[in-house]
Amino acid sequence: MSWPTLGELALRVGGEVLGDTQLAIHDVAALHKAGPNEITFVGDDKHLRQLRSSAAGACLISRKHRGARPEGVTTALVFVDDPQDACLALARIFRPQTEPALIGISAKAHVSPTATIGSGCQIYPGAFIDDDVEIGRDCTLYPGVCVGSGCRIGDNCLLYPYAVLYPNVRLGHRVIVHASAVLGADGFGYRFRGGRFEKIPQLGWVEVADDCEIGACTTIDRGMLGATSIGEGTKLDNLIMIGHNCELGKHNAFASQVGLAGSVTTGDYVRCAGQVGVADHVHLGRGCTLGAKAGIHKSIPDGDTQIGYPARPEQEQLRIMMVTSKLPEMRKTLKDLESRVAELDRLVEQLTASAAES
Amino acid sequence: MSWPTLGELALRVGGEVLGDTQLAIHDVAALHKAGPNEITFVGDDKHLRQLRSSAAGACLISRKHRGARPEGVTTALVFVDDPQDACLALARIFRPQTEPALIGISAKAHVSPTATIGSGCQIYPGAFIDDDVEIGRDCTLYPGVCVGSGCRIGDNCLLYPYAVLYPNVRLGHRVIVHASAVLGADGFGYRFRGGRFEKIPQLGWVEVADDCEIGACTTIDRGMLGATSIGEGTKLDNLIMIGHNCELGKHNAFASQVGLAGSVTTGDYVRCAGQVGVADHVHLGRGCTLGAKAGIHKSIPDGDTQIGYPARPEQEQLRIMMVTSKLPEMRKTLKDLESRVAELDRLVEQLTASAAES
Amino acid sequence: MSWPTLGELALRVGGEVLGDTQLAIHDVAALHKAGPNEITFVGDDKHLRQLRSSAAGACLISRKHRGARPEGVTTALVFVDDPQDACLALARIFRPQTEPALIGISAKAHVSPTATIGSGCQIYPGAFIDDDVEIGRDCTLYPGVCVGSGCRIGDNCLLYPYAVLYPNVRLGHRVIVHASAVLGADGFGYRFRGGRFEKIPQLGWVEVADDCEIGACTTIDRGMLGATSIGEGTKLDNLIMIGHNCELGKHNAFASQVGLAGSVTTGDYVRCAGQVGVADHVHLGRGCTLGAKAGIHKSIPDGDTQIGYPARPEQEQLRIMMVTSKLPEMRKTLKDLESRVAELDRLVEQLTASAAES
Repeated sequence: MSWPTLGELALRVGGEVLGDTQLAIHDVAALHKAGPNEITFVGDDKHLRQLRSSAAGACLISRKHRGARPEGVTTALVFVDDPQDACLALARIFRPQTEPALIGISAKAHVSPTATIGSGCQIYPGAFIDDDVEIGRDCTLYPGVCVGSGCRIGDNCLLYPYAVLYPNVRLGHRVIVHASAVLGADGFGYRFRGGRFEKIPQLGWVEVADDCEIGACTTIDRGMLGATSIGEGTKLDNLIMIGHNCELGKHNAFASQVGLAGSVTTGDYVRCAGQVGVADHVHLGRGCTLGAKAGIHKSIPDGDTQIGYPARPEQEQLRIMMVTSKLPEMRKTLKDLESRVAELDRLVEQLTASAAES
Repeated sequence: MSWPTLGELALRVGGEVLGDTQLAIHDVAALHKAGPNEITFVGDDKHLRQLRSSAAGACLISRKHRGARPEGVTTALVFVDDPQDACLALARIFRPQTEPALIGISAKAHVSPTATIGSGCQIYPGAFIDDDVEIGRDCTLYPGVCVGSGCRIGDNCLLYPYAVLYPNVRLGHRVIVHASAVLGADGFGYRFRGGRFEKIPQLGWVEVADDCEIGACTTIDRGMLGATSIGEGTKLDNLIMIGHNCELGKHNAFASQVGLAGSVTTGDYVRCAGQVGVADHVHLGRGCTLGAKAGIHKSIPDGDTQIGYPARPEQEQLRIMMVTSKLPEMRKTLKDLESRVAELDRLVEQLTASAAES
Repeated sequence: MSWPTLGELALRVGGEVLGDTQLAIHDVAALHKAGPNEITFVGDDKHLRQLRSSAAGACLISRKHRGARPEGVTTALVFVDDPQDACLALARIFRPQTEPALIGISAKAHVSPTATIGSGCQIYPGAFIDDDVEIGRDCTLYPGVCVGSGCRIGDNCLLYPYAVLYPNVRLGHRVIVHASAVLGADGFGYRFRGGRFEKIPQLGWVEVADDCEIGACTTIDRGMLGATSIGEGTKLDNLIMIGHNCELGKHNAFASQVGLAGSVTTGDYVRCAGQVGVADHVHLGRGCTLGAKAGIHKSIPDGDTQIGYPARPEQEQLRIMMVTSKLPEMRKTLKDLESRVAELDRLVEQLTASAAES
């Protein structure tokens, strides 16, 4: 294979080169890993400093830097509108993702005769599609995807190996479900009677709207009577728990290991960092942001940013954390003050006594 | 379909109607979601207030309210002994759960010739049952359930897709294991020798007693020498970790994402809220309750309620949390006091000096 | 079956008996569970006290105790070099692990004609091996293991049921992947444009070096451009999240439910206790240790031990936690001091006034 030159690659992404257009480029790589025959990108000005110490042969950078080479940077530069986009475009040249073969409906998949499957679907060996399922067009169900009876799946959905949909789960269009995610398992509902937990039947279902992505090993429990629902465009990372009866708004983004107890509701554009926990029946307001590991026990107003456990508004919590780090010193000061005040008490008593005498 | 009337439904659950018995009912729904042709329930008096603002056409409510219509409530009421039970009974009318077809032992399942399977079992395609397994009567193993060699499963168990039992796992009767739960993987045991972790063979097994339910993607590791055991009637939610050699008592209930390190023991009736973490060799006493995200480093006495990290008895922790929120103010007060005491020092010194002079 | 005597077992592990060599031994068991016909071990002197109250018939114990029977201990003793090793050796006598039958490549597995599989591999029914996969010698792939196109697997690897490798994942030699672990799912990468999250293609892969062990339901996301990598000998417990672009050093050990956001790097010999969370782009220095539930927002120096949230060096955090527990008392002291200082202010003012008068 002959390597493309920097000039050729720049052409592919409509960029202007500052540096050696004849440089042979062997791959794309991240800023801190790229070598002399690799091209990287700076997506954000705050990474410009790292570029100075990078060994990268070339770097895609925003067109706004054209003219003035950033100080201390010697790497060849390619000015483009969107460095990240451009880098991904080049990545596809070096590492073409092989389009999976069109296999249609594998004879080794189990498809119920009462299931309906749209045109253009790829159903891999070991997939299991139960009775009365309806699947739209151009969906891919990888090996072992299990679709329970009565499920509805829209068009262009992508279900990775061993994703499990219990009965009556509904997915919109362009939904991605990663490996071993479980949608529609029973909610954790019991009544405590006679010294034992008695199961409350979970008769509801799960609804995932268009353009959602559900991470690997994430679990979304079915509602007790109605739906547990995930709004349009919402993205859930891996190992997340969504309890029964939760209703998530549109375009939420939850990082991994977040846990929502039952009946939590959220507005649109809510963001949770990793390992956040939310108590049952809490509402997370539109556009609010919860910091990593935050523990939420009461509803969060629209647009608020809260962190910590128990969660508090960010500025307040940071102030408290700052003072907390000074606690040992404060305790010492407090003890000192106690002795000094005791000494003052003694002196003032003396003075008062002698004043009374005189 | 002609809709049933409120009067007809009331008859089905032995209820008395206060309101329009002719009202057509189309479905059951949760209190905050029910519309004018839906029936809901109030299971707990603390939700009575929400009923006033509900759009529900009708509501199942405890018979003890008979006679006096709760203030501000205009919804038609149906007085019953147990509103939640009644609502679930009606839910089954509107949304009958189709009994899965009896498929027997699918030819597409792999069943070892040395396995024994009781009468009435449903073994779905893709299930894998290894050598010397014994399964009782009337169990259902959904697609891809994997049962390792030497496992024992009692009667009436329900194993959802891709539940995995490593060799020698033992389930009692009426155990439910949800999708992608993993029972019997190796415990996390190593010896650090010569700069490397050397695996300690995990030769034990997992025992789950009667009437337990194990959530989706929950993992229970096998013991090193003996059993990791889950007591009768204990319920584990999704994404829980139970480390090797743990011994859980009866009728525990753990919410999702709880993690127990190795060799934890619990009494009966222990409750853990979500994301609780428990260090190794700790004992959780009978009837104790741990709040969400609690971090437990030492054993908890019987009946105690602890919260927070590090966990403390609830009242003590709440007091500390309350004071913590006032820390910035306390720090300011402390600094003020320091200056005031310094000023007092100065004044008292002056006074003492002039008293000495006079 | 005739039970072996203590004397016979001692011979097997090269031990010297202090006690009844004719005692029949029925099994090995943990210290607190062993009965009069069972043998246990004390691996660590701190468990010697528990031995006094143990009902065990016999106990393997370090040869250094030879001569002096530990005070209060009446159990028969077997002195050996390494009590844990000896106990595991005996465990294999009582509970021989049946070697799984050699099945070769099951006809019920799906193996692409373009895949290469080394000699001595066991491929179970339901395994799925896609195009251009290369697998080394003597690997075992249990039921339903899914290996995406272009994956590379070394020799002597062990993949448990439903372990999923997305395309282009690379495993070294002697790697163990437990059930339902997911390697190579898309990283959680989006750009927020026009009010929606737009997926950033994840074009990288996952690399796991020799001698790693990956726990059940653990997920390791693929890099965006390059590799997410796990260094040689590193052990990950269950339900762990490793975000995209992370690079873990050698011989790390992470307990269950740890979560690493994207682009975290670690040195060698890093240890994380359960439920630790690490923010993106943080570096965990060589040999550092993070306590259970620690929340890490900035890089940790080599060799440091940090605990808590936000994480701080252990000694500092313990001091802060100790003072925190005294906060309610400190607040009371502070209030007392305020009144006492106010009273002093009043008295000193009086004294100053009368001094001015006189």
